Amino acid sequence: MTATVAVDANGADLGPREVAEGALIAAREGVKVIVYGPADRIGEVGPGVTVVDSPVSIAKSPEPASAARSTPDASIVRAARAVAEGEADALVSAGSTGAALAAGLFNIKRARGIFRPALALPLPIPDHPVTLLDVGANADVRPDHLVQFAFMGAALVTLLHGIARPRVALLSNGEEATRGNELVLEAHGLLEQRAAGSFGMEFIGNVEGTHVVDGTADVIVADGFTGNITLKLIEGVSQTLLHVVRARATATSRGKIGGAMLRPALRGLRDELDPEGPGGAYLLGLRKLGVIPHGRFTRVGFANAIRAAARGVEEDVTGRTIAAMESAGALRRPPSDSTATVAAE
Amino acid sequence: MTATVAVDANGADLGPREVAEGALIAAREGVKVIVYGPADRIGEVGPGVTVVDSPVSIAKSPEPASAARSTPDASIVRAARAVAEGEADALVSAGSTGAALAAGLFNIKRARGIFRPALALPLPIPDHPVTLLDVGANADVRPDHLVQFAFMGAALVTLLHGIARPRVALLSNGEEATRGNELVLEAHGLLEQRAAGSFGMEFIGNVEGTHVVDGTADVIVADGFTGNITLKLIEGVSQTLLHVVRARATATSRGKIGGAMLRPALRGLRDELDPEGPGGAYLLGLRKLGVIPHGRFTRVGFANAIRAAARGVEEDVTGRTIAAMESAGALRRPPSDSTATVAAE
Repeated sequence: MTATVAVDANGADLGPREVAEGALIAAREGVKVIVYGPADRIGEVGPGVTVVDSPVSIAKSPEPASAARSTPDASIVRAARAVAEGEADALVSAGSTGAALAAGLFNIKRARGIFRPALALPLPIPDHPVTLLDVGANADVRPDHLVQFAFMGAALVTLLHGIARPRVALLSNGEEATRGNELVLEAHGLLEQRAAGSFGMEFIGNVEGTHVVDGTADVIVADGFTGNITLKLIEGVSQTLLHVVRARATATSRGKIGGAMLRPALRGLRDELDPEGPGGAYLLGLRKLGVIPHGRFTRVGFANAIRAAARGVEEDVTGRTIAAMESAGALRRPPSDSTATVAAE
Repeated sequence: MTATVAVDANGADLGPREVAEGALIAAREGVKVIVYGPADRIGEVGPGVTVVDSPVSIAKSPEPASAARSTPDASIVRAARAVAEGEADALVSAGSTGAALAAGLFNIKRARGIFRPALALPLPIPDHPVTLLDVGANADVRPDHLVQFAFMGAALVTLLHGIARPRVALLSNGEEATRGNELVLEAHGLLEQRAAGSFGMEFIGNVEGTHVVDGTADVIVADGFTGNITLKLIEGVSQTLLHVVRARATATSRGKIGGAMLRPALRGLRDELDPEGPGGAYLLGLRKLGVIPHGRFTRVGFANAIRAAARGVEEDVTGRTIAAMESAGALRRPPSDSTATVAAE
């Protein structure tokens, strides 16, 4: 099948044209793309890319959730509605994560049996790829939400990286099962029960911060507050360290020559660490898939995000994730009165 | 004055003799040290160091809190009791953090008006020193606990580093005051009120993970779960990155030569990043000061921990911290019935 991806072009640091350039790259590989953004700033596009003029942006709104509800003609809302109504198969948003999440929730809606959608980010760690979730969709969660994140992350990694039985861990302040805050302690107990009967994942217990980037786990699960801090710490520590190494190295003439000789060997490393590589975070738990690239990406990152969304559609990430969770008993039980349950959450 | 430091020598990876060697280094600079540990494994010591034979160790106990209660002759409990009874002025423990915390709480006890003790770690970030707390004493806290951590961290940094009005931030998943989990959102509001009238700190709002190690703040406040993960992530990411850089650099002969030329310039950096430099985490909020070095430290790190404790005594960190918090209205109000209040917590 050929996947159709709805893309919100508002909110990118380099402007909507850069997003459209990314769409054109992906379209040349056979993906169909519908771009929602200001047509006058996007300009001409080529085969495979359609532009729907949507100049209204809520990407910079301080209250993205209420903006997504109250602005039906915002580009992100129109893109999400296109996915909800079947005109497109997946959503990509270059704008605010909060707005994309809210527009997705209100329009595409949660998949059957899912408590909360989560953002799963494949981290480009050299030699040790790891997928971290939730990186920011839910600042406060319950233990059974973390259990679902574990299953959603495992299913994603299986489908995208071909790891049959991913090693899944809870991020905590100690390795022992007795370590954690109340949330993690309870989630640990629930995951031990649920994962025991599952072929889809191996629950390896807690990992500490020291083991996030050393290959101990394929999937690391956290609430969105902790996961977001983790993600940004990895970025900040890497930048500071590389900066300090460079500054110290170039402080002596001997070091300068040494650094110049090293540069070719390290050029590949910079590409490996590039956050544009994975294309962004996967928005899991809705009826259709979303991918959220970072607003500061270039066309290369946006093309990767659109490719990732298309591949997720082709692999039926959404359907197969729900099926895997159902067989593991990780879905929410159908409520007797669904209206009351939704209201109570 | 000459400070006397009570040191628990049980639990160090290199054995109690290594801790005693650290004590001897500090004693040569005028600190009086009482070492609690197995006298037969510690052996001969020199002037300024006294050994109190305490072979019983709870450093490896899986339940440190109950072990500290039920083992009055454990070395860490004896050391804490010596501080509580005035034989020593500060506590240093090379063993389990949990045991030191419990022994400190039960014997030295919380300072007047303090909800919870916290562990504050000066991070050895090149060019950008920052003190992070709590790095693990309290996995679950309330907003007013975070407020107290902010004041305790600010007072520590003022006394130790001479920063008159430290910039204090809450670690969060976004910079805006509207970002955070419920805990951080509420603490943010409380801190804005309390810090406004304080000369002892400048509350600069939230920092994200990207800004922990870039010099944005002098003190970063988090619950002990998040703070512990943060600390260990910084360690893990640094190690992985330096390892990968080395591996890539030495993969080519050109890179090998470049790396060799760089080595002298980077040797200083390794020393700057050395976690033994600051001596460990400060245990704040008890009636006397504690310092907790890492169990894997060498004599150099243990000597630094003992020096840090002695300096904290000379600067009266405990007394001046409480005074600063009192003038900012950050102390817990005296309960009408103190027995009932303690039981309710």
